[in-house]
Amino acid sequence: MVRRPSSAAVDLRLEKMMAKKRMTGAAVLTFEHISAVVRAVGLDGFMDDIISGLRCAGTNLDTQATVVLERSGFQYSKPDVGLIEWMPSMELGRAVGIKTVGYHPSNPTQRRLPSVLSTTSIHDTATGQLTALVDSTLLTALRTGAASAVVTHILALPTAAVVGIVGAGAQAVTQIHAISRVRQIKRIIAFDTDPAVSATLAARLPLAVPVTVVETAAEAIAQADIVCSATTVDIGAGPVLPDHGYLPHVHINAVGSDFPGKMEVPVALLRAALVVPDDPPQCLREGESQQLELSELGPSLPDLISNAAQYERYQQEITVFDSTGWSLEDLIVAEIALDHARRLGIGMYTDLQSTPADPYSPYEDVLR
Amino acid sequence: MVRRPSSAAVDLRLEKMMAKKRMTGAAVLTFEHISAVVRAVGLDGFMDDIISGLRCAGTNLDTQATVVLERSGFQYSKPDVGLIEWMPSMELGRAVGIKTVGYHPSNPTQRRLPSVLSTTSIHDTATGQLTALVDSTLLTALRTGAASAVVTHILALPTAAVVGIVGAGAQAVTQIHAISRVRQIKRIIAFDTDPAVSATLAARLPLAVPVTVVETAAEAIAQADIVCSATTVDIGAGPVLPDHGYLPHVHINAVGSDFPGKMEVPVALLRAALVVPDDPPQCLREGESQQLELSELGPSLPDLISNAAQYERYQQEITVFDSTGWSLEDLIVAEIALDHARRLGIGMYTDLQSTPADPYSPYEDVLR
Repeated sequence: MVRRPSSAAVDLRLEKMMAKKRMTGAAVLTFEHISAVVRAVGLDGFMDDIISGLRCAGTNLDTQATVVLERSGFQYSKPDVGLIEWMPSMELGRAVGIKTVGYHPSNPTQRRLPSVLSTTSIHDTATGQLTALVDSTLLTALRTGAASAVVTHILALPTAAVVGIVGAGAQAVTQIHAISRVRQIKRIIAFDTDPAVSATLAARLPLAVPVTVVETAAEAIAQADIVCSATTVDIGAGPVLPDHGYLPHVHINAVGSDFPGKMEVPVALLRAALVVPDDPPQCLREGESQQLELSELGPSLPDLISNAAQYERYQQEITVFDSTGWSLEDLIVAEIALDHARRLGIGMYTDLQSTPADPYSPYEDVLR
Repeated sequence: MVRRPSSAAVDLRLEKMMAKKRMTGAAVLTFEHISAVVRAVGLDGFMDDIISGLRCAGTNLDTQATVVLERSGFQYSKPDVGLIEWMPSMELGRAVGIKTVGYHPSNPTQRRLPSVLSTTSIHDTATGQLTALVDSTLLTALRTGAASAVVTHILALPTAAVVGIVGAGAQAVTQIHAISRVRQIKRIIAFDTDPAVSATLAARLPLAVPVTVVETAAEAIAQADIVCSATTVDIGAGPVLPDHGYLPHVHINAVGSDFPGKMEVPVALLRAALVVPDDPPQCLREGESQQLELSELGPSLPDLISNAAQYERYQQEITVFDSTGWSLEDLIVAEIALDHARRLGIGMYTDLQSTPADPYSPYEDVLR
C-alpha cells in the first residue's frame, strides 16, 4: 500500500507550487501565511524590520506625496456593539493602502475571536489594480507595538527596565515584545480587570521575563519606568490610569483609545506630560488628546522621529504616546510582510482581476 | 513514461478539491471564477437574477436598516489621471459591503486594461470578519446594465425596439444586453468618437441584432426609443448628447456621469424630462443631476421601483435615468455571484483571518 501524505501537507505543497509559479499576480496572504512569514524571518527580526520601517517613513515623510485620509465607517449595536471602518492612505504615484478593521469587543468572550480583525488591500495607482490582500490582525498588533517602541526608544530613560501593564490582553503582548527590542526589560508588573487574563500574560510572551500580577492599576504603575495601557474600557468609563503615583521619568504608551469618549489617561496627567500624538487630527477626535486642545499637544509621531535628538531631554520627564493607529503604519507593515512573502515563496498569488485581450469586451471570458 | 496532465488542468483540479473541502471559509472569487459562474448559470439567467435582485431590494428597501455612505477616495494626476475610491453600504445586523474602484481612463489605450477595475469585500457585522473578496469588474458592468433594465422596463414604451448608443465601449455591451432582457431590441444605432470602437460593437454583443454605425450622436438618437450614453467624456467637455431631435417618448439611460463636472445630457433636455436619480445626493454631486436642483428631480431608483405602476404613464414622455452607481447594487450582485459560486463549488475558500484558541495570544500561531 502506498502511503499518502496528509491532506494538510498536500495543501501546503500545492500552495507552494502555485505560489512559485504565479508570484507576479495579486498576493493573498492569510493569517497562516503571515504566521509562516514571521516564523521564517523570526519574531524579533520581523519586529525590528517594522521598527526600522516606521523610523524610515517618519524621517523621510513627504507630506505632499503621502496622503492619509480620516478613517470612516459604520457603527452599530445590532446584533452586538461593533464597528467596521476603513483607514486609507496613499503614497502618491505608487500605492493606495486601505485597511478595513472590525472592532467587536464581545468577540473574545462570546465567540473566542479577537476583538480587532482586519485586512489591508493594496492598489497600484498606475492602473487601479488590486495588488494584494493581507490579513492584518497580527500585523496591526505588531505595528502598534513597533510604534510604541520607536517612541519609547526616544522618550524613555536608556536604563528603563520595569514595564507596568494596564490591560493584559493581546496588545500587551506585542507592546512588551516591541519594547524589549529597544530597552532591556527586567520586570513586568501587570494589572487587568480580569485576573484570569493577567494570570496568563507571562505564558503568552515571546520572551522570558518575570511578570508580577497586581490587583490595581496603581500598583502596576508605581515602579514602572515605562507604562503601557491597552484596555477595552467602555466609552465614558475612563480614565483607567491613576492621576498620580508615577516615577518622575515615566513614559506611557497609551494604545487603547480609539473612539470618541474612550480614554485611558487622566487629563491632569496629560497636562503634566509631553504628549506625542501619532496622527494629531485623529488623536484630537478619538485619542487621549480629545481631552486637550491642539496647542497642548507635543510633536506628532513623524515630527518626533525626524527630530529625535531634540526630544531626548524629555527622557527625564513624564511623556505620553497617544497611539490611535496611523494609516501609513498599515501600508508599511503590509509591504514588509509582502516583500518577505514573495522572497520566501509564501502566499497565494492569483490573477484576481481581468486583463482582457479587448478592454471594451466585458463578455469576452464568458462567451469564449 | 507516465503522462502528466497539463499544469493548468492540475491547478483547476486542485482548486476544485480545495474549494469542496473548505467552502465555509472566506471566499475569494477572481475574474476567472466570476466568468465560470456566469458561464454555468448562463449570461441571460445571471442578468435576470440581478434584475430580480435589484427589483426586490428596491421594493423592500428599509431605509433604517440599509445605510449607504457617500463614496470617498483619492484622485490624482500622477503617474496618470486616475482615482481610487470606495463605496460602502451596510445591511444592518447582517453585512457590510465595500466596493473599491479604480478609474483610470488611459488604461484601455495605454495598458490594454479596462478603465474601471473593482473588487468588493463583504464583512459579517456580527464578528467583523471578512467573508468574501469578489472581483467586481464584470459584476459592476452587469449591475449597471441591470439597473438600466429595471428603469427601462418601467419607463420605456412596451414596444420600444430601437436602441441608440452614444459611447460604444464596454458599458454599451452590458447596457444593450440588460435592455434585451426587458424589451425586444430590433435595431441598434451606435456612435463613438473612435470609429474603431463602434465598428466592433456588434461582435462584442451576446445577442444577434443589427448594428448600424453612425458618425454623429444626433444620428444615433434620432430614431431611438431608448438611448444609452456611456462615454468617457472629459470633465467640463460635456454634454455629449444633442439638445433636441429625440422621439417624444425616448427613454435615456445616462450611465457615464460619475464625477463632478462630468456630464453627458444637456440641461435643457433634463429639464424637459422626468429625471430618475439612482442615489439622489450622489447624483446631485456627480451625476447628470448636478445640473439640477433637488426640487427638479423625479423619484429615486428605489422610489420608482416601489411605485412602478404610478410612473408607467411617463412611457409616453421623455425620461432620463441618472445612473451614477448605487452602492447597494454592488452588495446585491456580489452576493448573487457568491451564492451561485458556493452552490457550484467554484472559487477559493480559505481561512483568511485567524481564529486563535486564545484570542489574547497574538503570537500563538507564530510560536507554536
